Amino acid sequence: MPAKKCDFPEGALRIRFQPGTRNYRQRNPMKIIHSIREMQAEADRMRANGLRIGFVPTMGFLHEGHLSLIREAGRRADRVVVSIFVNPTQFGPNEDFAAYPRDFERDRKLSEAEGADVIFSPAAEEMYPAGHCTHVDVDGLTETLCGASRPGHFRGVTTVVTKLFTAVKPHVAVFGQKDAQQAAVIRRMTADLNLDVEIVVAPIVREADGLAMSSRNVYLSPSEREDATVLRQSLLAAEDLFRKGERDASVLIRSVRSMISSKPSARVDYVSLADPGTLQPIDEARSGALLAVAVFIGKTRLIDNLILP
Amino acid sequence: MPAKKCDFPEGALRIRFQPGTRNYRQRNPMKIIHSIREMQAEADRMRANGLRIGFVPTMGFLHEGHLSLIREAGRRADRVVVSIFVNPTQFGPNEDFAAYPRDFERDRKLSEAEGADVIFSPAAEEMYPAGHCTHVDVDGLTETLCGASRPGHFRGVTTVVTKLFTAVKPHVAVFGQKDAQQAAVIRRMTADLNLDVEIVVAPIVREADGLAMSSRNVYLSPSEREDATVLRQSLLAAEDLFRKGERDASVLIRSVRSMISSKPSARVDYVSLADPGTLQPIDEARSGALLAVAVFIGKTRLIDNLILP
Repeated sequence: MPAKKCDFPEGALRIRFQPGTRNYRQRNPMKIIHSIREMQAEADRMRANGLRIGFVPTMGFLHEGHLSLIREAGRRADRVVVSIFVNPTQFGPNEDFAAYPRDFERDRKLSEAEGADVIFSPAAEEMYPAGHCTHVDVDGLTETLCGASRPGHFRGVTTVVTKLFTAVKPHVAVFGQKDAQQAAVIRRMTADLNLDVEIVVAPIVREADGLAMSSRNVYLSPSEREDATVLRQSLLAAEDLFRKGERDASVLIRSVRSMISSKPSARVDYVSLADPGTLQPIDEARSGALLAVAVFIGKTRLIDNLILP
Repeated sequence: MPAKKCDFPEGALRIRFQPGTRNYRQRNPMKIIHSIREMQAEADRMRANGLRIGFVPTMGFLHEGHLSLIREAGRRADRVVVSIFVNPTQFGPNEDFAAYPRDFERDRKLSEAEGADVIFSPAAEEMYPAGHCTHVDVDGLTETLCGASRPGHFRGVTTVVTKLFTAVKPHVAVFGQKDAQQAAVIRRMTADLNLDVEIVVAPIVREADGLAMSSRNVYLSPSEREDATVLRQSLLAAEDLFRKGERDASVLIRSVRSMISSKPSARVDYVSLADPGTLQPIDEARSGALLAVAVFIGKTRLIDNLILP
């Protein structure tokens, strides 16, 4: 975690380094907005000034993966909005909504240090007031993979992302490749609903031992944390088989499954080789295919994936 | 039909009378746009110039009811976009999609004469390309009234209106009160999805004998056309009972049903007294309640409604 970046005096004009085209620029203090109307008004002001809005939707408890998305948005836009909203409708009744880790003050500092211009952090009642009864569905892409084990999850995701897009009015939005299915679903939805938002998917950020960063990693006990490295290792082993010529999807999937099963705390939810656009399973491995896993490590459900080279 | 309004020389700079704030203004020739991207670019240009966009979504075959919506949009905005799109997804398998009346050239002239600045007329393949699989649902408001007899209809409506809104990017959109349930559903959806579009509902426009204007009235034979006046007459008779003190919804509904049944070609689809916002049926009539009917006249399904005084 880049802790030293948090040491800016609060509210001061900050100078930020931009790895992209604009190397240095003076910025106003970061704004924190809770109301949809106010967010829309701020977006309208930015747009009226000809500024390009980059958007990173998050559920908070930011880690280096999120921060990489904020930096990517900064490279692609003049202003960066980060939303922090633990969306109740994408959690199932037996999932971890109540326990999901939250630390707004930490998220605020990290976002500001990475150069965010606005945090949009609505209350659940602001997003879903009494009488709210509209939802968005993407059929076909949401019944496989995580959609199969988390019924209703993607309806929650597509509805909230639509609502976040209409609140923030971004030109470009950045999602993480770790949630590969979410990225494919959002791409499809954005195209289907003409949302006029460029969707960028940024690479997975990993711990030193290969574990994909996730807010849920804090749930893991030390021994579970060790077992969790098997997600990445099993994917890399399958990639190695593919590089050596194996094209039978069932062989690759069996290899991943057996490696994962060797860990005492691990239980496979799914292992799938799929088309990265339609998410439909494929029988013959090919370059560009999505190899994705979901695994319970103890009670914690983790996901990871790679694109075959 | 105000045919003389169509006599402007094509492409000439036109002067239009505006009953609202701006009485006369010089205008550019009306544009006809078929592509979503081009429509969005046109909307972005208008918005960048500080112009307020008014929008009237239609399925074409315009009548005086539509024209009143175009005029209302003109009073409320600087530019008026009229969409003409017979949306296949809001028709049931046994409904009149193929037979629905179409006359683009006539619609073009009428729209231009009423001062429309843009006609947005996408092909079905532009709106629903191969692989399209996203839809918008408004639960709760769509299972009653027309939703009960036309399953899937409102999903088609809410999805296409979302897509038209994201294509046209209006500040204000004008719908007709004749489709009272549609108006309530669109209001709910617009609020729920933060669509940042003002929804205006304009009064029903009627023929001299009270029949609500509808593109489907052309289906009626002369004798059916005569019978069709019973929709309005039966609603007015119930309103009269209400004025005289009747508050029992079932009495009002029975009165409407019995008047309609007296016509040989008429068959009631539904008669309902409902809350105008939630569309849930109410037992006790009150001022502001929605009294709505759907009636088959021969094979033609017609609707009408009034708000109790």
